[in-house]
Amino acid sequence: MSKDQGQTNHAIDAYADGAWTLPGERVRLATETPLPLDCGTTLKDVDIAYQSWGELNAEKSNVILVCHALTGDHFVAGKHPITGKPGWWEAVVGPGKVIDTDRYFVICSNILGGCMGSTGLQSVNPETGEHWGRDFPVITIGDMVRAQKLLIDHLGIEKLFAVVGGSMGGMQVLEWACQFPDHVFAAVPIATAARHSAQNIAFHEVGRQAIMADPDWCKGNYLAEDKKPHRGLAVARMAAHITYLSEAALTRKFGRNLQDRDQVTYGFDADFQVESYLRYQGSSFVDRFDANSYLFITRAMDYFDLAERFDGQLSKAFKDTPVRFLVMSFTSDWLYPTHESREIVHALNAGAANVSFVEIKSDKGHDAFLLDEPDFHQVFEGFLNGCAEHRGLKGAKS
Amino acid sequence: MSKDQGQTNHAIDAYADGAWTLPGERVRLATETPLPLDCGTTLKDVDIAYQSWGELNAEKSNVILVCHALTGDHFVAGKHPITGKPGWWEAVVGPGKVIDTDRYFVICSNILGGCMGSTGLQSVNPETGEHWGRDFPVITIGDMVRAQKLLIDHLGIEKLFAVVGGSMGGMQVLEWACQFPDHVFAAVPIATAARHSAQNIAFHEVGRQAIMADPDWCKGNYLAEDKKPHRGLAVARMAAHITYLSEAALTRKFGRNLQDRDQVTYGFDADFQVESYLRYQGSSFVDRFDANSYLFITRAMDYFDLAERFDGQLSKAFKDTPVRFLVMSFTSDWLYPTHESREIVHALNAGAANVSFVEIKSDKGHDAFLLDEPDFHQVFEGFLNGCAEHRGLKGAKS
Repeated sequence: MSKDQGQTNHAIDAYADGAWTLPGERVRLATETPLPLDCGTTLKDVDIAYQSWGELNAEKSNVILVCHALTGDHFVAGKHPITGKPGWWEAVVGPGKVIDTDRYFVICSNILGGCMGSTGLQSVNPETGEHWGRDFPVITIGDMVRAQKLLIDHLGIEKLFAVVGGSMGGMQVLEWACQFPDHVFAAVPIATAARHSAQNIAFHEVGRQAIMADPDWCKGNYLAEDKKPHRGLAVARMAAHITYLSEAALTRKFGRNLQDRDQVTYGFDADFQVESYLRYQGSSFVDRFDANSYLFITRAMDYFDLAERFDGQLSKAFKDTPVRFLVMSFTSDWLYPTHESREIVHALNAGAANVSFVEIKSDKGHDAFLLDEPDFHQVFEGFLNGCAEHRGLKGAKS
Repeated sequence: MSKDQGQTNHAIDAYADGAWTLPGERVRLATETPLPLDCGTTLKDVDIAYQSWGELNAEKSNVILVCHALTGDHFVAGKHPITGKPGWWEAVVGPGKVIDTDRYFVICSNILGGCMGSTGLQSVNPETGEHWGRDFPVITIGDMVRAQKLLIDHLGIEKLFAVVGGSMGGMQVLEWACQFPDHVFAAVPIATAARHSAQNIAFHEVGRQAIMADPDWCKGNYLAEDKKPHRGLAVARMAAHITYLSEAALTRKFGRNLQDRDQVTYGFDADFQVESYLRYQGSSFVDRFDANSYLFITRAMDYFDLAERFDGQLSKAFKDTPVRFLVMSFTSDWLYPTHESREIVHALNAGAANVSFVEIKSDKGHDAFLLDEPDFHQVFEGFLNGCAEHRGLKGAKS
């Protein structure tokens, strides 16, 4: 059983109360021209919550847009306002780091449909005055990127120096390069795929079914009924979390070590450290994430298939692209295995694109892109430096 | 949501009603000398449900004991009495098949703690007159095998010709060879491990948390409260089912094919075939399996670590063993990957055992051991033929 019942969900409560208390900026866009969505409807008055680091140069040519993953948010670096832990890409973004905030102006926005300030399922539907909840339109990765484009336009940035991200963030990177090739100088899709695999759809479906099986989900209307499907969401998180790691990493980290005991108890307590760890992952997640958002974002990932709109030919998505690409994967990532990255690279090569591809040796699984992996960081930094030189950015490192 | 609510659980109902209506045999053992369990307690009046195929020869030397996996049962071949589908090892067991019932006398018993007739959580605790439910002692693979030994003794069989099984069945095979080496001529552990990995414990824990999160689990007392945690059990099954397949198999079988529609619906119906398949796996499972049994059997697997009782040295488990081994794994099995089988083989080699090891090339994942895999069948049959010759069994094939 998750131990979280009775806890509050700070982010969602802050939002539900209409009091935006989290740090960062927030702008309302699409107020006059609604944002068209892939499902056929439109959204008006789209709020985008974001943070930035570093200084925008006079030419506005040093902007790196960071795209976050399924359960990420715009708190990339610095102390996270809810968990109190370091931001999710603290290893990569900061002064003197791979994405050097002494040099680049770094932006990350909470995705459309997210639960940390951007318009999503906890937002109020202006037409009804009620929370959207499950009535929110089912959004896509393409919709998320078009919402980000509104923000970039709003900030007066004509061309992003780079768009970077891992996992679902990498899907957004691919969408940026596909939809807005003239507004992106370099693109770095990491540990991702151009389409979501059957196995990954299956894992998402397990998570969704876990949430929807929780009576406190209330058919999606839990906010109105003052409930939270914490148990279902925790199970969904636990199942997903296993896929973010590798068998080797789990064995190295936990093996069959027991949790604060000398022998098994012949019961259902968390005898093993790996059980205790997993339960913690589930119970801490529900304190910072919204169940309906989880449903909708996983669905957006399932629907992602970049080649589909080009008659199944991925190369057409990048035809004659001026964007420079660095594609990276990790040897032990079984959620987005290297062959998925190779498919992207083959398509880019077929389109005669400028592309580098590196498979990083790591036993840390999918999560390696979030961690301190020296080879990964070196390749990533080298690519950005090279692009900075080509772009004529001042202060280029040699 | 699972679509099973309102359906009955035939096996469990049959058992709960005290009316044993399923086909096969059933004997009550440990009536005078209780069965000692690893947890320190004992069990009296242990019922073992089993089936057999073929004829026992006069020397009782042609017996093959088949050990079933987590969600298996003793309905190995022939029409399953509940699902109406073929038995789980119909591809392997039958006249003229790999385990040739024209030649061998084949036995399979429902494991201790199972929910198909052997003593388990739905049984009545003789001391209280109530269903055991969650008060049932937490059993181990070793306990299951000692219960099987009671049955084999009861049948007057001194030495099994072979003990065979895949997955958790393979764990039982290893236990047989370790605990009763003089009562086993040949052992065939398939797609298994000598200890359950951290990743596998983690997946089991997700399943257990899904069940225990279901309010209808009633803290384990659902039988007394006339409820069934169908939704939680279905989620557990769905998560587990993904691990039985391979990414390649899921891609080949389903890919991103849509289910009876031309385009996605921008909703949470089963748009994709793989979702529909997974939902079916969940909802059909709850009709034949008991949630508490699932908890207890997964726990037995988690606890399995054959080397632990030998100071961590697996080779000691098989020291000077007279048993002939065939160890088999499948290339695409990521639940029990080949390196787990290699560890068994290394330990057997260190003990100078008679061991053959074959890794079968297959893209079907862990479930390959249940399926029509010609290479697997050929190797398996060849090994049994060789052993039959050594054992001097009549009617040996050349």
